[in-house]
Amino acid sequence: MARAPQIETVISNFTPRFITSGVPLADFEEATAGLVDWEDWLPRWSGRAEIHEALGHDALEEARGLSAADHLTTAALLYHFAKFMAVQFPEAMRATHAKAVECHRLALPHMEPPGERVAIPFEGTELYGNLRKPSGIHKPPVVIMVPGLEATKEEIFGYAPSLLSRGIATLPVDGPGQGEAEYHLPIRGDYETVASAIIDWIESRPDLDTSRVGIFGVSLGGYHAPRAAAFEKRIKACVSISGAYDWAENWDKKSDLNKEVFRIRSHAKTLEQAHEIGKTLTLRACAKNITCPIYIAAGGLDRITAVEAANQLAADVSGPKVLSIIEDGNHVCHNRPYKVRPQTSDWLALQLGE
Amino acid sequence: MARAPQIETVISNFTPRFITSGVPLADFEEATAGLVDWEDWLPRWSGRAEIHEALGHDALEEARGLSAADHLTTAALLYHFAKFMAVQFPEAMRATHAKAVECHRLALPHMEPPGERVAIPFEGTELYGNLRKPSGIHKPPVVIMVPGLEATKEEIFGYAPSLLSRGIATLPVDGPGQGEAEYHLPIRGDYETVASAIIDWIESRPDLDTSRVGIFGVSLGGYHAPRAAAFEKRIKACVSISGAYDWAENWDKKSDLNKEVFRIRSHAKTLEQAHEIGKTLTLRACAKNITCPIYIAAGGLDRITAVEAANQLAADVSGPKVLSIIEDGNHVCHNRPYKVRPQTSDWLALQLGE
Repeated sequence: MARAPQIETVISNFTPRFITSGVPLADFEEATAGLVDWEDWLPRWSGRAEIHEALGHDALEEARGLSAADHLTTAALLYHFAKFMAVQFPEAMRATHAKAVECHRLALPHMEPPGERVAIPFEGTELYGNLRKPSGIHKPPVVIMVPGLEATKEEIFGYAPSLLSRGIATLPVDGPGQGEAEYHLPIRGDYETVASAIIDWIESRPDLDTSRVGIFGVSLGGYHAPRAAAFEKRIKACVSISGAYDWAENWDKKSDLNKEVFRIRSHAKTLEQAHEIGKTLTLRACAKNITCPIYIAAGGLDRITAVEAANQLAADVSGPKVLSIIEDGNHVCHNRPYKVRPQTSDWLALQLGE
Repeated sequence: MARAPQIETVISNFTPRFITSGVPLADFEEATAGLVDWEDWLPRWSGRAEIHEALGHDALEEARGLSAADHLTTAALLYHFAKFMAVQFPEAMRATHAKAVECHRLALPHMEPPGERVAIPFEGTELYGNLRKPSGIHKPPVVIMVPGLEATKEEIFGYAPSLLSRGIATLPVDGPGQGEAEYHLPIRGDYETVASAIIDWIESRPDLDTSRVGIFGVSLGGYHAPRAAAFEKRIKACVSISGAYDWAENWDKKSDLNKEVFRIRSHAKTLEQAHEIGKTLTLRACAKNITCPIYIAAGGLDRITAVEAANQLAADVSGPKVLSIIEDGNHVCHNRPYKVRPQTSDWLALQLGE
């Protein structure tokens, strides 16, 4: 029997993403083997997540903290991918999302270095992030990490270790339309308002160096990050990987699943309305205002964000820039992590070093 | 066209091993896509390794040490898997092996914590190992890491981080028939002689705690480790994953490639002679002499070492034991790393703690 088109979309686009993010290979293979119906995606992945969750709870009970952290972050990642595009099943999506958040939250204090869940005031409500600080460094710089459309702070967490090992604190945040905020705050184009709220919060932390704040985004977060840098001048360095220049310009080429996920997370009633909201996600008028150093990376084989977006952004910015086109890279270069992850980490360490 | 039987053997047995060991998914997929002839295996994998090697040298030149270490250990791993069973092509195998050793060696001082290449006197010649010590710990315990038949110290290195993070120094060693020693020293059953030489060397190091030495082996190393523990009483804890109890007893069930690799690395002229040498690899008479704590793990789906080997070993030992049969695990449980790696690391930390 033919696989559902959603499964085709997800597997053909994202297999390297799953593995590079930390999904054990056999979990991926066994969760997707023989999968035909899209409605089975979520329970199959959740079933794998439960194994790791149980191992994590065993480890917690036995005070094996490092193992608990490993098991529970893997459980969170699998629960996350179980529901990451399951917008057709809102109740199951939300319940599974809660498990992802809970597993990751339980893991945080046992990580090395430990993590801390933080609440960031934003327009009368709160955004949630997970802060980790590098060991043994007084008042480190900090990088705000902005996930993509179907990602969350629990997924982009995978980029944290290479920054932490280079002396940089990491702060993945669920912004409007993302993760814990997606139910009450829709996706919006003016991410500078979000970044400003996050940096206001950073300024309340005496243990972080407010003068050395960077922002790092992938996919839709790769749009949000430079958008924020164009307006919020407290940002001292920006990394954008596979971000859109003008999100709606290739609307017709997006997959049905991608458009539907955007519709739900932008709180639009119709695809037409979603398309209109999408048009507010643009760097066209503001990219020239980016004056901080920026590292722009894109994959030459990207089927989701055309590589031209990176070229356009690089052409517009007014400050120092690195433009890295990975010819054999796919969306977010998940198939070539070694061509963007160490490089952007080193670059951020250089920009935000004392 | 049908794939060569060697390729079938390697891919069907070892795909999870490659990925769990750290081979990027797309490297594996692209190195093996459309592969038909066994003689193409080595150059295809070497081609992928060269990419990482070049990135590593770039990083070295730019003093980006952590990135250099990452790139070069990946390069070493890919060169290793390029040649790991390519015994039919001895010149190419040896040249590629030299590249694996060289890349890993270049990476060592840039790892966090750093590594150190060490030479261990053994029967008038030398064995080579790579020592890493956990950060900030005075006189840590140390675990000798023993690779399997086609593995080397550069592959079993992948188990080091979880031990290091638990305060244990790690010492992967190429023993007789393995890695750098395979050309001048054949596989031998009495690995206790090797372990004793390694521990003599450890006793020469004032920065290691000689009273807290463990041994950890997988696959053929999962035979060597308990064999050593049966005779060498300075070993205080032993981990054996998917080790044979009596290596030759299932000779007829081994793949042709497996037998040929054993023949070459045991320096036997014929398969019959190799079979005879294999018979010296046995715990039958000595397992009862194992008195130190031992953790025995095996996969219920193992097609290379029958799970009975673990049961036999556990039945024979005289000291404290953990027997962990992972019902859904394959050989070395590479498909279920999360069911053996954190657990054995925690167990070793407990046994070797102060």
